[in-house]
Amino acid sequence: MVTSLPKPTTTGARRRPLRVAMVGHAFMGRAHSNALRQANRFFDLPYEVVAQVVVGRDAARVEAARKKFGFEEGSTDLAAVLARDDIDLVDVATPNDTHASIALAALKANKHVMCEKPLALSVVEARKMVAAAAKAKRHVGVWHNYRRCPAASLAQRMIARGDLGAVRQVRAVYLQDWLSSAETPWSWRNDKAVCGSGAHGDLNAHLIDMTRFLTGLEFEAVCGVEQTYTKKRKDGDGKPRLVDVDDAFAFLARFAGGAIGTFESTRVAPGRKNHNRIEVSGEKGSIAWNLERMNELEVFRFDEPRDGQGFRTVMCMDGVHPYAANWWPDGHILGYEHTFVHTLADFVRSLDSALRFRPDFEDGLAVQAVLEAAQKSTASGRWQTVKN
Amino acid sequence: MVTSLPKPTTTGARRRPLRVAMVGHAFMGRAHSNALRQANRFFDLPYEVVAQVVVGRDAARVEAARKKFGFEEGSTDLAAVLARDDIDLVDVATPNDTHASIALAALKANKHVMCEKPLALSVVEARKMVAAAAKAKRHVGVWHNYRRCPAASLAQRMIARGDLGAVRQVRAVYLQDWLSSAETPWSWRNDKAVCGSGAHGDLNAHLIDMTRFLTGLEFEAVCGVEQTYTKKRKDGDGKPRLVDVDDAFAFLARFAGGAIGTFESTRVAPGRKNHNRIEVSGEKGSIAWNLERMNELEVFRFDEPRDGQGFRTVMCMDGVHPYAANWWPDGHILGYEHTFVHTLADFVRSLDSALRFRPDFEDGLAVQAVLEAAQKSTASGRWQTVKN
Amino acid sequence: MVTSLPKPTTTGARRRPLRVAMVGHAFMGRAHSNALRQANRFFDLPYEVVAQVVVGRDAARVEAARKKFGFEEGSTDLAAVLARDDIDLVDVATPNDTHASIALAALKANKHVMCEKPLALSVVEARKMVAAAAKAKRHVGVWHNYRRCPAASLAQRMIARGDLGAVRQVRAVYLQDWLSSAETPWSWRNDKAVCGSGAHGDLNAHLIDMTRFLTGLEFEAVCGVEQTYTKKRKDGDGKPRLVDVDDAFAFLARFAGGAIGTFESTRVAPGRKNHNRIEVSGEKGSIAWNLERMNELEVFRFDEPRDGQGFRTVMCMDGVHPYAANWWPDGHILGYEHTFVHTLADFVRSLDSALRFRPDFEDGLAVQAVLEAAQKSTASGRWQTVKN
Amino acid sequence: MVTSLPKPTTTGARRRPLRVAMVGHAFMGRAHSNALRQANRFFDLPYEVVAQVVVGRDAARVEAARKKFGFEEGSTDLAAVLARDDIDLVDVATPNDTHASIALAALKANKHVMCEKPLALSVVEARKMVAAAAKAKRHVGVWHNYRRCPAASLAQRMIARGDLGAVRQVRAVYLQDWLSSAETPWSWRNDKAVCGSGAHGDLNAHLIDMTRFLTGLEFEAVCGVEQTYTKKRKDGDGKPRLVDVDDAFAFLARFAGGAIGTFESTRVAPGRKNHNRIEVSGEKGSIAWNLERMNELEVFRFDEPRDGQGFRTVMCMDGVHPYAANWWPDGHILGYEHTFVHTLADFVRSLDSALRFRPDFEDGLAVQAVLEAAQKSTASGRWQTVKN
Repeated sequence: MVTSLPKPTTTGARRRPLRVAMVGHAFMGRAHSNALRQANRFFDLPYEVVAQVVVGRDAARVEAARKKFGFEEGSTDLAAVLARDDIDLVDVATPNDTHASIALAALKANKHVMCEKPLALSVVEARKMVAAAAKAKRHVGVWHNYRRCPAASLAQRMIARGDLGAVRQVRAVYLQDWLSSAETPWSWRNDKAVCGSGAHGDLNAHLIDMTRFLTGLEFEAVCGVEQTYTKKRKDGDGKPRLVDVDDAFAFLARFAGGAIGTFESTRVAPGRKNHNRIEVSGEKGSIAWNLERMNELEVFRFDEPRDGQGFRTVMCMDGVHPYAANWWPDGHILGYEHTFVHTLADFVRSLDSALRFRPDFEDGLAVQAVLEAAQKSTASGRWQTVKN
Repeated sequence: MVTSLPKPTTTGARRRPLRVAMVGHAFMGRAHSNALRQANRFFDLPYEVVAQVVVGRDAARVEAARKKFGFEEGSTDLAAVLARDDIDLVDVATPNDTHASIALAALKANKHVMCEKPLALSVVEARKMVAAAAKAKRHVGVWHNYRRCPAASLAQRMIARGDLGAVRQVRAVYLQDWLSSAETPWSWRNDKAVCGSGAHGDLNAHLIDMTRFLTGLEFEAVCGVEQTYTKKRKDGDGKPRLVDVDDAFAFLARFAGGAIGTFESTRVAPGRKNHNRIEVSGEKGSIAWNLERMNELEVFRFDEPRDGQGFRTVMCMDGVHPYAANWWPDGHILGYEHTFVHTLADFVRSLDSALRFRPDFEDGLAVQAVLEAAQKSTASGRWQTVKN
Repeated sequence: MVTSLPKPTTTGARRRPLRVAMVGHAFMGRAHSNALRQANRFFDLPYEVVAQVVVGRDAARVEAARKKFGFEEGSTDLAAVLARDDIDLVDVATPNDTHASIALAALKANKHVMCEKPLALSVVEARKMVAAAAKAKRHVGVWHNYRRCPAASLAQRMIARGDLGAVRQVRAVYLQDWLSSAETPWSWRNDKAVCGSGAHGDLNAHLIDMTRFLTGLEFEAVCGVEQTYTKKRKDGDGKPRLVDVDDAFAFLARFAGGAIGTFESTRVAPGRKNHNRIEVSGEKGSIAWNLERMNELEVFRFDEPRDGQGFRTVMCMDGVHPYAANWWPDGHILGYEHTFVHTLADFVRSLDSALRFRPDFEDGLAVQAVLEAAQKSTASGRWQTVKN
Repeated sequence: MVTSLPKPTTTGARRRPLRVAMVGHAFMGRAHSNALRQANRFFDLPYEVVAQVVVGRDAARVEAARKKFGFEEGSTDLAAVLARDDIDLVDVATPNDTHASIALAALKANKHVMCEKPLALSVVEARKMVAAAAKAKRHVGVWHNYRRCPAASLAQRMIARGDLGAVRQVRAVYLQDWLSSAETPWSWRNDKAVCGSGAHGDLNAHLIDMTRFLTGLEFEAVCGVEQTYTKKRKDGDGKPRLVDVDDAFAFLARFAGGAIGTFESTRVAPGRKNHNRIEVSGEKGSIAWNLERMNELEVFRFDEPRDGQGFRTVMCMDGVHPYAANWWPDGHILGYEHTFVHTLADFVRSLDSALRFRPDFEDGLAVQAVLEAAQKSTASGRWQTVKN
């Protein structure tokens, strides 16, 4: 991979700026802009990230976001921003149904692109994005931020170096509870036209990407079940609205090579706030990780003395752990937003190297293909092959 | 239901004996015989249980078992034992492929019957057993012992009284690791002819029964996936033998009324020794339970003050908890074998009452029907309806 | 050490009986008698334990206990029982203030003696018991049952073989909550004349014995603080009674060789039912154990790869763990009462060997000496040297 | 309390800047400067915090810190910085032995002051600082950051509103392991002249402040024990240096009103990285908190239905929890550095209000008084009264 940005000089001279236009400024915009501000404060990067312009539809809200998030400028004219020469990177932080069009426009304008997940609303859209990225020769990435939680990165390192042997089973759940009550108001997250699906696209997308990241395995076929418990909700104005996405979606998977897995996402599991948990069993060991205790990794290996075998709780904030040395002393934990900082830091590093940043659009497409096959299976009542 | 045993008089007079013949004396025989010895020591029961005769094939091993387990007599002649008038209850503790024939013979001989799980190797067999029990008007039960772990009984009580509202989702796993290594020798548990299946019949049977017990829901349709990672193992003599049962078996379920569930059993999850865990999500709350910490129940309910909501770890050894008052003071925990003592105590109580002992053969049949539908689905690649 | 019992022949011939007289039949009597019944069922022992006679003051209650606990006989005449030739072992399961007199009488009658903890109400009493035991050349033991929880025994093995290096720190708490409410009625456990102290003698006694067992260290000096929050309670008849023992008692300790420790016992820690927890830190590692999850041992060691270091949760029910192979398959947990079975089994084994059974009366005296020095320190306001 | 800063106008007009000079730029400087940058991004504050100037001794290191931490200027001349009119707040982030002199100089120069903990090296010094702050009528604070971990703030709220009833017992430990190995090099943290003490001043200071914060209780008397296991360590140049501070320090406490507590800090507890754990038992309930899982609070209360009582794990990232609404959706956890952001945000808010910011220098003095009394007790071998 090639980047047209000039090689940065990190010693002596001042770092070249990397100017970013962020499109969208809701929850994800808040997390992304924090990463833009923090990356250079904690990581030695080849560029100095500049939060240049935040883009939105409503001028007043854009200005409020600009102030709050610390951008230099605000704009309601995306085309004009894309036309500027000084913008290096476009960060797509909008709702799901606009990811594809914005990312394609940015690539056409020769920008690097970081896109929120899910990459697209369909495999067809995602394929176009992969093709456009390949043609543009720009760096692209998807904000599957949990890959860069230190404990998840550590798990990936352990599996990649063979600590568990061949992976045999994956069990992954992403449990939330904010739609348990029928009184929770309707929002765009209950609208299929905007989201494509409910818990499935929102949460299973994370599980699918994490599984591919941790294990290196590819999904071969899937079979699912979904349910919507509350079919109507009132919107902010008290008007009844149809819920046409799933509250809960579970699926089985077969992987190339013979491994199998179970996956479940739900927004109606009382008491589970952000319970994104994955357990991987291999021939020789297992790991388990849970976002709610994201600084800990559970590790089991058979190769210890038998009377002392057990799951170890590794506190992943020792200097030897991924990303940890950039932050605080041992045992001083990180939070949710740090995963975005790590993602951006690695993306910025990749601009200056031959390394392919992962997850890129091909990874985003792979996730989309699994999501779509699973949805097909709930309609057909049978297993569906996954086709990128 | 009717029992022909005379009403016991528990005050003043000595309790009438309940003489038991136990068939089989391996691991399960050890657990059952402990229950026979202990039940009257910790529970006030209408009969005095007598461990009368242990039955097996090999005279020497029967005698060793007799001594170790504290039976009055040993026998290698099942027919002769069944013909005796003084035997009230036959306890079937043999391998799976003989459950049906022994239980049918015992019912024919007009004995009460307690049978190890799974009830049978097939739905067809199980149906015959249900019919025979109905005809014999004897008390019958299945040793699904985990129902009577205090924490599981408490969970059932909470769900039944509406603490969680309508049940929406079940997630259940039974994870073990003793077949992880290809060096673990072949045994009858790897032999389909004896067991019917691998982790599926052995462990999923527990999950299915527990789900029905806790939620009161009936399985409507299932769809599964199974895998055998080690296809050949050496037996005790070093001879290579085919493994024709699953190492791991997962399935999705739809329940009557709209709830859904995920189920997985495996013997190849390193670090998981006896990780039989079930989580039930309802409209208003959730419970979670794990056999490895069997004295604890996790409970979440929305109806507490919002800033103090969270999963509670209930130590189920307070006098108000099921079975707890019969044992030790608060917080003095119970173990695996106590679940058998509770099962027997409740069975013996039922002999003297109009209460139907659960799980009985109908429950055993229901489990068998789910197991069989799931197996069918792995062959067909599609959802299968569950038919008792 | 010598035992006068004839060598048992365990093969071919029938085991010689070991007839036991148990004095007392309340909570502890229940636990002890269970051990008497179970030991031979799960352990190969040189003698067949016979629950011969239960001794108490009230004939009716003795008879009820006899039936419930499965003794051959009941008696209200301790002297007569001690005078019998066929009684081999006297088990003292009475309240604290009678331990010394009964044990001394039993030794005088040439019986082996197992005594409930605490051994005595004072160091002076305890010294007499040690002397009597030495003179009688009988086997004596104290029911510090938690030593023989598999996880605790495993911890002792690990420390003894040097897994942690030199022990530096001990932190031990025994937290209960049954006296939190001022409404909890007065009982003999609030009466200094019967108990000697409150949480201190009842619970700190366990912590002191466990510390000596696990670490092999001897207490050198201690300094404590105690508090009684509810000074009066109503007894069963509604009559107000003075509480003259501690609700909570904490103390610091210095050990021979330089290690230090913190100890706390309380009956007023809401939510803690039987939270007997000890953590030992050594040069190279740590262990932590909690009775409420008594089947698990937490183990940390520096000698693992640094990026995978963490506390391991060892499920102590693998065949390689102490006592585990005598019970159930991997991961099938044990409960409170098993610790008594293990204690008795080891005591019975010691009768047939040159091995000194531990804890014996010298160990009981050592515990008493620490308890007493700690009590002295709360009066004096300064550190007190521990003197056996 | 009065502040001379003009009232800010937060609507319409631009916020007035609050210019900060930070003295020191090591680990604590990193944490403080992050707070300076982040506070206005996540909190609506009456002033716009400006990271104006970082002050240190070495020009090159100051310049590196300036760039890394995002300050406008760097300086090696503290006096000159204090003489400037545009500096509003001096943030003391230097080693312990310089806190007093810098804070006193800043107050003399009429600046607001935030000071790292411990406030001073002695009670005498701390009293001077309290007096100077009172005279200067400036706002002062101590960076006891853990008070403002959401879970700790929630615990304080619960105790203050009476959820636990009267507090009876506190058990607090702060366990680390980085000095376990004799190979860990000597540093200023092993030097009494710089630190005053070892684990005691570094870690017990946190426990003492947290206890006062959570319970509102004042320490009355203390008695301690300390130990240094490794008396010599090599410094960075391989030169042997004396360790004249404690590796571990434990003490007992009596509080005004009758509560008691145990406290322990250590740097030699293998496996414990940043295990800052406190448990408070009251008449009616308990709370427990651990910095290593800082987003969770354990809460027990007797007033729930008895069969469902247990410790609840409250995930403190719901909008109703302290500080949580300023960050991310439910269950998206925070990390170590957020506690500094919260501390600064509250301090900045206090500048514009009549509210006394806590912890201030009087709180810092109170901590110092307990630390000093405990040190006295290890020398005297007896309890010491705490005197502010």
